[in-house]
Formats: sequence, structure tokens, C-alpha cells
Amino acid sequence: MRINLHILKIIEKKRDKLGLTQQEIEYLVQQYVAGAVPDYQIAAFLMATCINGMSEEEISWLTSAMLHSGEVIEHNALGGPLVDKHSTGGVGDKISIPLAPAMAACGLRVPMIAGRGLGHTGGTLDKLESIPGFRCELKSREYQDVVERVGCVIMGATDKIVPADRKFYALRDVTATVPSLALLSSSIMSKKLAEGIDALVLDVKFGSGAFMQTKNDAKSLAHAMVAIGDHLGKKVTARLTNMDQPLGRMVGNALEIAESIDILKGSGPKDSTDLTVLLGAEMLLLGNMATSLAEGRKQVEEALSSGRAFNKFVEMVKAQGGNIEVLHQPSKLPQAPNKIEILASDDGFVEAIDCRSIGLALNVLGGGRCQLTDTIDHSVGIEALIKIGDKLEKHQPMFLLHTNGKGVEEAKSRVLHAISLCPHPVTKSELCHDRITNKNLL
Amino acid sequence: MRINLHILKIIEKKRDKLGLTQQEIEYLVQQYVAGAVPDYQIAAFLMATCINGMSEEEISWLTSAMLHSGEVIEHNALGGPLVDKHSTGGVGDKISIPLAPAMAACGLRVPMIAGRGLGHTGGTLDKLESIPGFRCELKSREYQDVVERVGCVIMGATDKIVPADRKFYALRDVTATVPSLALLSSSIMSKKLAEGIDALVLDVKFGSGAFMQTKNDAKSLAHAMVAIGDHLGKKVTARLTNMDQPLGRMVGNALEIAESIDILKGSGPKDSTDLTVLLGAEMLLLGNMATSLAEGRKQVEEALSSGRAFNKFVEMVKAQGGNIEVLHQPSKLPQAPNKIEILASDDGFVEAIDCRSIGLALNVLGGGRCQLTDTIDHSVGIEALIKIGDKLEKHQPMFLLHTNGKGVEEAKSRVLHAISLCPHPVTKSELCHDRITNKNLL
Repeated sequence: MRINLHILKIIEKKRDKLGLTQQEIEYLVQQYVAGAVPDYQIAAFLMATCINGMSEEEISWLTSAMLHSGEVIEHNALGGPLVDKHSTGGVGDKISIPLAPAMAACGLRVPMIAGRGLGHTGGTLDKLESIPGFRCELKSREYQDVVERVGCVIMGATDKIVPADRKFYALRDVTATVPSLALLSSSIMSKKLAEGIDALVLDVKFGSGAFMQTKNDAKSLAHAMVAIGDHLGKKVTARLTNMDQPLGRMVGNALEIAESIDILKGSGPKDSTDLTVLLGAEMLLLGNMATSLAEGRKQVEEALSSGRAFNKFVEMVKAQGGNIEVLHQPSKLPQAPNKIEILASDDGFVEAIDCRSIGLALNVLGGGRCQLTDTIDHSVGIEALIKIGDKLEKHQPMFLLHTNGKGVEEAKSRVLHAISLCPHPVTKSELCHDRITNKNLL
Repeated sequence: MRINLHILKIIEKKRDKLGLTQQEIEYLVQQYVAGAVPDYQIAAFLMATCINGMSEEEISWLTSAMLHSGEVIEHNALGGPLVDKHSTGGVGDKISIPLAPAMAACGLRVPMIAGRGLGHTGGTLDKLESIPGFRCELKSREYQDVVERVGCVIMGATDKIVPADRKFYALRDVTATVPSLALLSSSIMSKKLAEGIDALVLDVKFGSGAFMQTKNDAKSLAHAMVAIGDHLGKKVTARLTNMDQPLGRMVGNALEIAESIDILKGSGPKDSTDLTVLLGAEMLLLGNMATSLAEGRKQVEEALSSGRAFNKFVEMVKAQGGNIEVLHQPSKLPQAPNKIEILASDDGFVEAIDCRSIGLALNVLGGGRCQLTDTIDHSVGIEALIKIGDKLEKHQPMFLLHTNGKGVEEAKSRVLHAISLCPHPVTKSELCHDRITNKNLL
């Protein structure tokens, strides 16, 4: 057994609910990244943190230490404010894809680093890779160039971005320490701040398809991340949004690109378009490009309806090597050979949708990942034809599965079991809830 | 990163304060001992256990799983009851050495497995190795033979005894998870029950020289260990005893053998003799060799005063290869070349002794270990000439250091600083406190 006595003291303090100093947190992160502390010591520290928590200050120090474990991108001083959006993930959440170019069309710079799908949630990078030729793996220099030329970019993290988080995350995953407010919020925020942004809008989801099941948990996470912004001098606004049903109409990689194009052309589903407009308005507000949310909304709506947002998307895809022909003719995106309708078993109102089950059904069809090494069929997916509160008649189509023949029966069963009908009318659920922003912006 | 998903679920349950099943605890212990679970997963589990605790049942299952990770010694069915004593350790605590033979003289069989010194506490095996030729490393067969022929044995754990505890302990040591009631009590009890005993007396110490600083902590540990006995059908009695000052007169390996011989001949210091008699009486009671503590005391006192206890000790030392000449002539035990008096700096009453400092002063002189690999000079030690409450005159000797010249100045300073004098009389501290025993024995 190897032992680092200084680290042992730090673990003891966290075990005993004592506050850590900035120096202690920096030391722990630096030594771990340097390979000077064994995983088992850090595992004990992570569990102590998961159970005993951290103060806002400790979380900010942890975020800062992780952030500075790697490269913090520097952008050209000229150009619009650097603002990004991050979502805690859900089912059918493709908002980043229309939002980044819409914001670039409004004059912001959006240097977005996004992730891959895992478990029941999809990943922005996987969706973009439905576009033939699209490259998510860029070098820092190329990334800066695309931001400078186009105004937005969406790429995967490089090895140089927050290496501490990769090490911590891998260990958290196997030690049951993922659901820690301190560890979650510092992980998200360090990766986002490494983009070199001035401001960040957070979409913190709650409900059956979200990482946070309850609104209260989502609120705590939102507060923790906004507090990191307070401490580190970054403007941050969080919106709590409902993830009790798939967002928009499409769940699946190429299908979500098709829906994103619809949103970018002003003809997307109401909920996914509304959320794009809301989060865009928040970004414009933080970037000082609008003086009110209402004004921000107008700018986003104009960017969508005018086609300027779509044109930015075409520019971005082209800059990242993608075939822009499919953007103009979405029918050329990967198409699954079979379409299977799932019908309502009875008359009734849609009371609830187990959104996580829908996400897992996509995995079963081959469109998602159980492990990071799984490969994805971009063509398959699930089209949701209903929303909570809808009145259904027996045998009315509820979902359309786009399949390649794999996993059909299991996916059907999962989707069917995800739906609860009830005989009396049901209130439609609100998409957007609380707003949490920096103390000095209130 | 390796991951065992079943173990992950177990960690999650403990993190969330849910009770584990016997099967889950057995699985975790078995898989860890088999090398099928990485240290970092167990480290997270240990920290969750350290913070969230375990129920009495869980602790018993853990003890049982650890116990059965290795060999449980079986003794001849003929002969006296198999009873042992365990102390949580302190400074000058040599009680096992006179106690085991005294009990054998009274008709019990005592198959004692003991440990080595580390930090401020001494180890019974180190003390016995002051006797030239004494062998602590016996095979199981030889161990059983000595118990059968002599009635008592004191040896070190073999590799086959509770291998799970060795793995867990090494990991706890580097992950700040040593002071967990569940982990401490199961560690102690599994090792003791592996001796194949019917009953166990526990000496749970509290105070400046003990592992447990407060009486309340000691009481909790005692209750946890007695509860393990309740659940696993073993008779267990715990006594809380004070470790606010060195026990007896001698601290140091050969010096403690000399004091043990005094106790065995009925001429030992009052406190160490009293404790030998008390713990012996408890052992005789548990072994059904006495019907009351008073009757047990008489038997122990008779064994000491008659020389039968001493004769058993001679037999045991002989059976384990030791030179019995030194038992008859203790002046032939290793002797340190120098003796240095430490004098009272002022008139006053002894108010407190930082007992841990006395233990660490022994290390400085070369008589203890900071790490398990350190070697020991058996001859050096500290003779305590005072007890709490004693009235001292300026320049009256308080301690006698037996040194080989090494570390003298530091040891002197540590010993001096360990003593607090005050001008008014001080109440002498009680050695023996609460008694905690099985529910069905109350």
C-alpha cells in the first residue's frame, strides 16, 4: 500500500466534516493528476465528499484546481462575448445544435465543448456525427479558428482540457460517487470554464429522463453551479426545465439533426423551439446583447425565422468537415429501413411518460451506448407523437420506431411500458421552471 | 478502471445509509480477498461505512465473513474451556503475559494470538521476544500442541488467520478509515474468534494512552464487540479501563517481561496486578470455572501467590523455545547500559500524564516502532515512579530512562512535557470502570 500522509490528513478532515483550505484542495488535485496519489486514497476522499459535502468556497476551489489542471482556451480579444450553454442531459435534448448557430447569428461567440451519449441520455457529438464527414475532434488551434471565422463550434474535449476531471470522473463512476453536488458541479463547471467563456447558461433538468429526479435536487445543483460563477467571477444563469417527457419530437441521432434543422428554419416542434428561444434569450442577456429576456427572445426568433441561424449552422458544419448537402436535404441523413408504429392500448389521457425508459429503448435499438466503447447506428430512433395531457383514442399511434431490425421487441415493450394512461383529463406539464442567477445580477 | 457492478450496488447502499444483507457483505469480503475487486472500490465502501456506520447485524455478518475468509483453529474437544482476553492497547499494558499462564494454571485453555507494537503502543509479541529464543511464529499444528500440553500459548497471526482483515486493515490505514466502530470491532473480533475460543474478555481502554480517547467512544466499541458475541453465539465480557497513565511500573519490552514475572510471583505493582486479577476473574466466570467475580479473583490470586501461574509461564516459554533461565534470573534479560533519572521540576501533585507521549518517548529510545519494518532494542524503556495524585517534591525522581544512548534528549523532553503538576491535591484515577456483557449473561 502506498500512502501520502498529507493526503491522509485531507481525507480525515473531509471525513470529519471539517472545511478544507484552498491549498489542500489544490494539492490533492495536482498530486492526483501527477500520479502521486493512489486511486484508493482518492476514492476514500470522493466518498467522504459525496456523503459530507463541501461548502460553496470549497467547491469553487475544487473547480478552479480542476480547471487549471489543464489548458484554458484563449480566444481572440476581438469579436462578440463568449457565452455557452450546458444542459445536464435528457432524452431528445438536441437544443445545443440549433442554439449554438442561432447565438452566433445574434453576434455571440459560442466555443462549445460537448459530450457523448451514455446510458439513457444522448450526446451532442454523436448526433452531429450523423452528418457525413463531421469532425468533432479538433485541435485547440482549429477550434479557436472556427470560433473566430464562424462564431460557433461544437467539439469534443481534448486530452488537454481538464485532465483532472477525466481522472476523477473515471474513478467516481466505479466508486458510487457520481451523485455528489460538489463533485458534479465542479466537474461540469471546470469543463465549461476551460472553454475560455465569459458567461454560461445552464439548463438543469429534472424528472424521469433527467439525472436529477426531483426538482429540489436540480435546484440544489443549479445553486451550486451559479455559486461557482459567483466565486470565480463568471456570469452564470441556470434554468430548471422539465424532463418528464422527451423534448421535441425526435429521439435518436440523425432524427435529432433533422429536428434541429426544423428548429433552425423556424418550423420545429413547439417545446424544443421554445426552449431554444428561452436559453438563447438568457445567453444574449448574459452577453449584454439584449437588455431584457423579451428583447433576447425577439432576436433569437428573428435569427431562426430569417434563416440566418440555419446559415450559421451550415457554415459551422462545413468548417468542421461535414457534408452540408444533408442539411439542405435532410432525407439524405442516415435513414433506418423499418418504421414501426406503437399504438395506444386504450382510450385515455397521457398521464406520465417514463422518459428514462424511452432513452433506454433507443439503446436497445442500437442508437445509444451502455458503455463508452459501444458503437452507434445513427439512423435508428424513436419519434414521439404524443405529449403528457394529450387525449388518445385506442389504437392511435403514440410512437414511431425507426429500426434496423435489432432489438425491436424489447424496445417496443420498453416504450409501451413507459406510458401511463388515465381516464380523466391531465394537466399538461410546464417545460420551464425556476431561474437562478448570480447574486450581483439579481 | 475496473468495475464490479454488484460491488457498486453495495457501495451505493452503504453510501445511502441502507442496510446491507448478509449475502452482500459475504460477497464483498470474498470477492475482495479473491482479488476480484479493486482497492479503490473497497476504499469507497470503507469510507461510506466509516461515516454512515453499520447495524449490529451488519457488523456481525462482516465479522463472520472475515473470520471465514481464513482458517478457524480447532482444538481438542478434551480439556478446559477455551477463553482469551484482548486489550485495545495502551502504554505499559503487559497484562496478557501474566494472565495467559495464570488462567492456564486455573484450568482454562488460552490460545492467544497477539500483535506487535506500533506507534505509541507496545506489542505482546515484541515483549516476549525479549526472552532469548522465544518463538512467536508457530504453525497451527504447533500452536494447538502447546495449548494442549501447557494450557496456554501466545503467538503471532499466521497468513491463514483472517486474511480478509490483513487486506482490509492495510487499506484502512491509508484511507483514513481506521476509526470506524464497525470496522474496528469486526477486525478485532474476527481475529480473536479465529483462535477457536468459546469466550472472550475484552479490556477496552480509554484515555490519553488509548486508541479511544474518551470513555464514551470506548463504551461504544465495547458494546459493538459484545453485540458481535451476542449475534455469533460467543460469550463476551468487556471491561472499560483507564489508560490515563502507564499501566504498572515498566514501559519497554524486557522491562515489561520483568514486571510480568513480578506479577506472576505475586510481587507486581498494585495496578497491573489488580487488572490481571480482575480480567482473570472475568475469564474464569465466562469459562464457568467460577460462579462469581469474587470467587474468580480468589482463584487468580491463589494461582499467583502459589507460584503455579509462574510455573505455567515457564512451561509456555519453554514450549515456545525461550530460554527459561532469564525467567528465574530476570537480571539476565536484555539490560540497557544507561539509566537516567527525570526529576520533578517543582513541588506539586501529579495532575495528568500524557500517556501517549510516554509511549512515543519509548519509540524515540528505540524500544518501539513508527513503521512495522522498524527494528526494536528490547533492553530500553521507561520506568514510571509516579502515579496521578502522587505528591512530589522538587527534584524527586519521576521516571527512570533505560537507554542505549539513542534519542535521550528527545525522550527526556517528551517525558517531561507529558507531566502536569498542580499545587493542590488531585483525586487518584480509578483503573476499572464499566462492565458490558452479553444480553443473556446479564
